[in-house]
Amino acid sequence: MVFLPLVTQLIQTNMDNQGNAILLIHCQDTPGIIAEITNFITVNKGNIVNLDQHVDHGANAFFMRIEWQLEKFLIPKDRIGEYFQTLYANKYGMEFWLYFSGQKPRMCIFVSKMSHCLYDILARYSAGEWNVDIPLIISNHEDLRPVAEQFGIPFHVFEITKENKAAQEAAEMKLLEENGVTFIVLARYMQVISDEMIARYPNKIINIHHSFLPAFIGAKPYHQAYERGVKIIGATSHYVNAELDAGPIIEQDVARITHKDSVDTLVNKGRDLEKIVLSRAVSKHIDRKILVFRNKTVIFD
Amino acid sequence: MVFLPLVTQLIQTNMDNQGNAILLIHCQDTPGIIAEITNFITVNKGNIVNLDQHVDHGANAFFMRIEWQLEKFLIPKDRIGEYFQTLYANKYGMEFWLYFSGQKPRMCIFVSKMSHCLYDILARYSAGEWNVDIPLIISNHEDLRPVAEQFGIPFHVFEITKENKAAQEAAEMKLLEENGVTFIVLARYMQVISDEMIARYPNKIINIHHSFLPAFIGAKPYHQAYERGVKIIGATSHYVNAELDAGPIIEQDVARITHKDSVDTLVNKGRDLEKIVLSRAVSKHIDRKILVFRNKTVIFD
Amino acid sequence: MVFLPLVTQLIQTNMDNQGNAILLIHCQDTPGIIAEITNFITVNKGNIVNLDQHVDHGANAFFMRIEWQLEKFLIPKDRIGEYFQTLYANKYGMEFWLYFSGQKPRMCIFVSKMSHCLYDILARYSAGEWNVDIPLIISNHEDLRPVAEQFGIPFHVFEITKENKAAQEAAEMKLLEENGVTFIVLARYMQVISDEMIARYPNKIINIHHSFLPAFIGAKPYHQAYERGVKIIGATSHYVNAELDAGPIIEQDVARITHKDSVDTLVNKGRDLEKIVLSRAVSKHIDRKILVFRNKTVIFD
Amino acid sequence: MVFLPLVTQLIQTNMDNQGNAILLIHCQDTPGIIAEITNFITVNKGNIVNLDQHVDHGANAFFMRIEWQLEKFLIPKDRIGEYFQTLYANKYGMEFWLYFSGQKPRMCIFVSKMSHCLYDILARYSAGEWNVDIPLIISNHEDLRPVAEQFGIPFHVFEITKENKAAQEAAEMKLLEENGVTFIVLARYMQVISDEMIARYPNKIINIHHSFLPAFIGAKPYHQAYERGVKIIGATSHYVNAELDAGPIIEQDVARITHKDSVDTLVNKGRDLEKIVLSRAVSKHIDRKILVFRNKTVIFD
Repeated sequence: MVFLPLVTQLIQTNMDNQGNAILLIHCQDTPGIIAEITNFITVNKGNIVNLDQHVDHGANAFFMRIEWQLEKFLIPKDRIGEYFQTLYANKYGMEFWLYFSGQKPRMCIFVSKMSHCLYDILARYSAGEWNVDIPLIISNHEDLRPVAEQFGIPFHVFEITKENKAAQEAAEMKLLEENGVTFIVLARYMQVISDEMIARYPNKIINIHHSFLPAFIGAKPYHQAYERGVKIIGATSHYVNAELDAGPIIEQDVARITHKDSVDTLVNKGRDLEKIVLSRAVSKHIDRKILVFRNKTVIFD
Repeated sequence: MVFLPLVTQLIQTNMDNQGNAILLIHCQDTPGIIAEITNFITVNKGNIVNLDQHVDHGANAFFMRIEWQLEKFLIPKDRIGEYFQTLYANKYGMEFWLYFSGQKPRMCIFVSKMSHCLYDILARYSAGEWNVDIPLIISNHEDLRPVAEQFGIPFHVFEITKENKAAQEAAEMKLLEENGVTFIVLARYMQVISDEMIARYPNKIINIHHSFLPAFIGAKPYHQAYERGVKIIGATSHYVNAELDAGPIIEQDVARITHKDSVDTLVNKGRDLEKIVLSRAVSKHIDRKILVFRNKTVIFD
Repeated sequence: MVFLPLVTQLIQTNMDNQGNAILLIHCQDTPGIIAEITNFITVNKGNIVNLDQHVDHGANAFFMRIEWQLEKFLIPKDRIGEYFQTLYANKYGMEFWLYFSGQKPRMCIFVSKMSHCLYDILARYSAGEWNVDIPLIISNHEDLRPVAEQFGIPFHVFEITKENKAAQEAAEMKLLEENGVTFIVLARYMQVISDEMIARYPNKIINIHHSFLPAFIGAKPYHQAYERGVKIIGATSHYVNAELDAGPIIEQDVARITHKDSVDTLVNKGRDLEKIVLSRAVSKHIDRKILVFRNKTVIFD
Repeated sequence: MVFLPLVTQLIQTNMDNQGNAILLIHCQDTPGIIAEITNFITVNKGNIVNLDQHVDHGANAFFMRIEWQLEKFLIPKDRIGEYFQTLYANKYGMEFWLYFSGQKPRMCIFVSKMSHCLYDILARYSAGEWNVDIPLIISNHEDLRPVAEQFGIPFHVFEITKENKAAQEAAEMKLLEENGVTFIVLARYMQVISDEMIARYPNKIINIHHSFLPAFIGAKPYHQAYERGVKIIGATSHYVNAELDAGPIIEQDVARITHKDSVDTLVNKGRDLEKIVLSRAVSKHIDRKILVFRNKTVIFD
């Protein structure tokens, strides 16, 4: 290989430097980190378009999301991670995640029989609201196949029984991998995901639970809310972890109810909450605005 | 006693018929109840100014609040209860509560060391927002005596220890009785009320719990909320019953938080929720708008 | 025609008495109305399942919505209106509207180019959330034809220019009539409806305006909101009347924003508001829960 | 004066370096600003505890709030402003505001006859919620003197008529100056502030308007809201500028209402909104979290 001076190399590789880079960082809080990182980007001619940082003083933990334009950035796209690892991550013991706006996340939706969350997601997808690809939908029932077909998205049914669960999930994971799926959305999927699958997609499976967690964990939360006589119901989207309805919360919202509401009207009012809260969480995930730390989320602006 | 014809008697007694009567009713749902009761008031020349009713179809239970002007009402004020009992309550197996707008409820506030709920209540009281008397404030600490004195309300301290609790509560109840107290407001009173006292004031003790119940029951709910990483905090006012934080909920409200909030800022944001939610509940109690049924509240408009 | 005794007639006709009757009433406030009407239903063996009434004391106006089961009701369905007119409406100078749960309202959706409200409505329709028929969709552009086709609903395009507007609206109204349309939903339809058409559908055209009315009337409300620097944006659904964005308000909701929001993110956040607020209004209209009085709505529970 | 080497000077002066410095910055957006400023603080041994920045891409404007601990900061407190001016402000054409946590803002409250906002502020003040001094209260009426006296705060009455307004405001401004007042809170003060006074306190007079601005500007907003038939009412706190109810908005909030609400109940519900919204705005002002730019506020976390 012929030796080229560094600058020439950079200029050549830079042909591909388009769009934005998004860098999420987590490390112990140390004075000077912000200065160093913003300096790194600036001296290399990156134009910072977004910066949000957070210090958890109790945990002495530092979090940052920084987004910059790549157009004139001196370091080629495919080397940025390596440079950052060498120059800063090693030095500060950082975890970091580097994304590019041009790389669309690939989402698989899991559904059962209820259509409201699925429709809400597909309507946004179809209208181009989100920077995402949806290569497939998985279900344990046939019911929503017509919805998938309306939107022209492949629909795969894996019926789940106690006996076949492990095998079916294995098949699902194979399919997910073949489709390059980067995260999963459980859009009222009425099955518990096994620990194996959760381990394969850590903080990459988003669930919607139809209560204001941690109230009314588990089955039939609207019935529980009705029985308790609450005056406000809620919905919670969270990453799935090994403990039921106990993963890191991404988004919550609530709606006021009264004594006049029956379980049925709670279910009706809840549907709107569920779909909006789930879609807000999905949107933040797609935009790489979430960091998970100690079972809680840091959500950048 | 000389016999007087009925109409004359009525006219005489009617001299006192001023203000409004408020009737709260609960019984099994039966066709025709609304017609009978509205008819009873109308033919006796009462002018209905407010009617709200609710049927819990699941429990087959009927609830009603009806308010009418007494000015031309043919039945004297002090006989209405008797008439209603005879004509309707016996027939339908009703429970009913009859109030007059001229009879102010008498409230005792229990406090410990935090002033925000107390100030909010006393400011409203002082501005004449509420149709209530506050003959006294009770505390287990001296701290808020200056606030009581600012507003010229007697302040009684009963220090509570494990050993003296029963005796102190007995003394408190004697004082409440002497002051004609009809309901109690626990304005961040940091003591558990004994079952004896609760039994003496059933659905007449209003507490504010600084969480969105049933989430975060018990001590330090803001710490619990912080640990769980919720995105919304709440406050709940409820009637006190024998089970901790499990009484009938009157009012709830919430506030949005983020990962940037520490326990301290949650406490700050929560204070505003607590005082507003408590005052809304107190206001509804004062206006006789609440019925309790199976550990839930029916709250009339 | 052979004479049949009344009771027999009733029993025969009663074969069709199924479902519920819904009666909306408006008249001057007079003592005894509630008693008379509830009595009328009760003595004729109707089982009242829902009653909500409102008195506007300032305007001395009475409003009521009452719903009862027809199964054992003695008056045949097709005579109830006549009886009610004769017995009560004439006497009290009432306006009244009588509906039957079995008669589905027929809705026409008008759209232009934005799909979010349309998808939200069609997803609910498709999931059977609403007791409504949607025989057709009308647009001034071709853009959303694929969405209509996804859901199998006829899609008619009437391009509107200054010159052809009257003729096109006439054609639209003919089509609406042929399809038995009872109300119209403007789901971000970017055309002003003419007075002729409004007069044909008084309080039967529901619009969604993307601001918290009466703030930001007219064009580009998100731009206006951005310019003014508000901290909360809103959406308003209202019946269309002759004055722009000034018809009776049915439903409003809001979302918090910050200085970080651009016009684009306002538009994004607003979309969710718009679709939910519009659908809530449509749902109330379908359920016959709205009365209009002096350019304001009474919305029954 | 004996010459001392710089470092010694610094060490000596540093004896006073306690608490935090808060720096608010505004300038044209230029690459590298964040890096330079965080670097400046870090190399001088300031520990950044809070950083929030915002870029208005449309206006190409940069905003930043940065807070750091002074304890080990090498530059003495009373020289920081000068250093910053020389090193950065001149270079970037910045406007900047430097505050120290130990310097309490001094607030004067203006009131008329309504007590709810005043009580809310004084209760917080009295409980130590805010880092502020309140040396005096000014009113155009005697009514609230007892409230001021309850809290031991001097109360000055300046009756305002058309004729004496200029003279009275001059006297007020003299009093404000004597008391070192840094900002003014209009707690339902029912007088328009003159342009002279506004010019003396630019973006330093906080008003609460009892509507969701820009809806219902001017007098009697609750009456206007009632007439329009809105379903949500609001309150808006803003800095006062020369145009009525048109100054930069700091905070807004809303409450849901129904057709059952009269003007009176709107006023009641509005009171809670007003006091909370005003207090939130005051709190942000006290914490130096607000920058005003082109009649809008940037509100830092």
